[in-house]
Amino acid sequence: MKEGISKKTVYRLTVYNRCLRRLADEGVPTISSESLARFAGVKPTQIRKDLSCCGTLGKRGHGYEVKALRSHLTDLLHKSDFQPVVLIGAGNLGAALLKYDGFEREGFMIIAAFDLKPEGRGEDFPVPVLAMRALPAFLREHEIKMAILCVPGAPAQQICDHLVECGVQAILNFSPRILRVPPDVAVNNVNLAIELESLSYFVR
Amino acid sequence: MKEGISKKTVYRLTVYNRCLRRLADEGVPTISSESLARFAGVKPTQIRKDLSCCGTLGKRGHGYEVKALRSHLTDLLHKSDFQPVVLIGAGNLGAALLKYDGFEREGFMIIAAFDLKPEGRGEDFPVPVLAMRALPAFLREHEIKMAILCVPGAPAQQICDHLVECGVQAILNFSPRILRVPPDVAVNNVNLAIELESLSYFVR
Repeated sequence: MKEGISKKTVYRLTVYNRCLRRLADEGVPTISSESLARFAGVKPTQIRKDLSCCGTLGKRGHGYEVKALRSHLTDLLHKSDFQPVVLIGAGNLGAALLKYDGFEREGFMIIAAFDLKPEGRGEDFPVPVLAMRALPAFLREHEIKMAILCVPGAPAQQICDHLVECGVQAILNFSPRILRVPPDVAVNNVNLAIELESLSYFVR
Repeated sequence: MKEGISKKTVYRLTVYNRCLRRLADEGVPTISSESLARFAGVKPTQIRKDLSCCGTLGKRGHGYEVKALRSHLTDLLHKSDFQPVVLIGAGNLGAALLKYDGFEREGFMIIAAFDLKPEGRGEDFPVPVLAMRALPAFLREHEIKMAILCVPGAPAQQICDHLVECGVQAILNFSPRILRVPPDVAVNNVNLAIELESLSYFVR
């Protein structure tokens, strides 16, 4: 199953699961694909396609049972309770992410940051800021599988290679570089400047 | 033309234009669709489709002329030299984005932030932090077209409605809520926790 679901589908399933959590919290028992689609910001056909792919079918005229679907998706996405994460690059954006509480709320704990110049940075941050040369040993010792990359474009690929060598399997990439990784490593790219720049096209 | 290009295509064209800027800086005269595709992290067929859509064709066996293509895409994306932006919600993430220098480098200037509790926040930030009630007058006076939304899910839709009423045409949405907007308003969603959560599926 794992190999059969694309990254984009996993992303949408994660969004649906979030919506379902909110619906469950509000005590909603069932939801139609049309309503769930509106909630999640996709087309109803997309929802039906995604959910039938992962073996879940709503009943015609009844929609999906919120609790059952949520439990199914949670199992499928097999989110662990706690996932330790390292952050590379404690510049402006990295520092911001370290203080952002949204990750922890979702079960991801940034347990250390790494920077070329870690000296005297510790007091600004809720986690230790360590030297880049300490990274490989740290990754192996703590069996880190996920990393957040907040470095400039130039060193990004080289650092990415180190991460992968040391067992990292998933990278949230804020650097402006497209990273080359082996097929068994997943990368999500978040380029904030491109997000804003591509929006500016729509401003008259 | 404007109405004919989808948001996803505009996003990819923006990425191509970035790659072309780097190639031009490095003095590369021409590039094949295969190389540009590798650079941009998409498939060659996608590049050819996107560029033929906007009226640009490479020469068979020669590829694209870097400078000419860059100039064409820049005109098409009609990026202005300077775009004033407001940021709503000066919490952890908002504060981080205010200090992030990547936007300004790309011609976007956050000229003010707005928060429910602006008191005493000014010293932490490079721009004035104003009260939410000052937002509508500010948007109209400065003819603001773009906003970055960093508020929690609950108030997001209501604030979004205010922004749109006051003339905002493009929103970079960091709130966890899917926003309902009129068809002539563009929204890019960046949900950092979902990015990380959807990656965790790929960790064994």
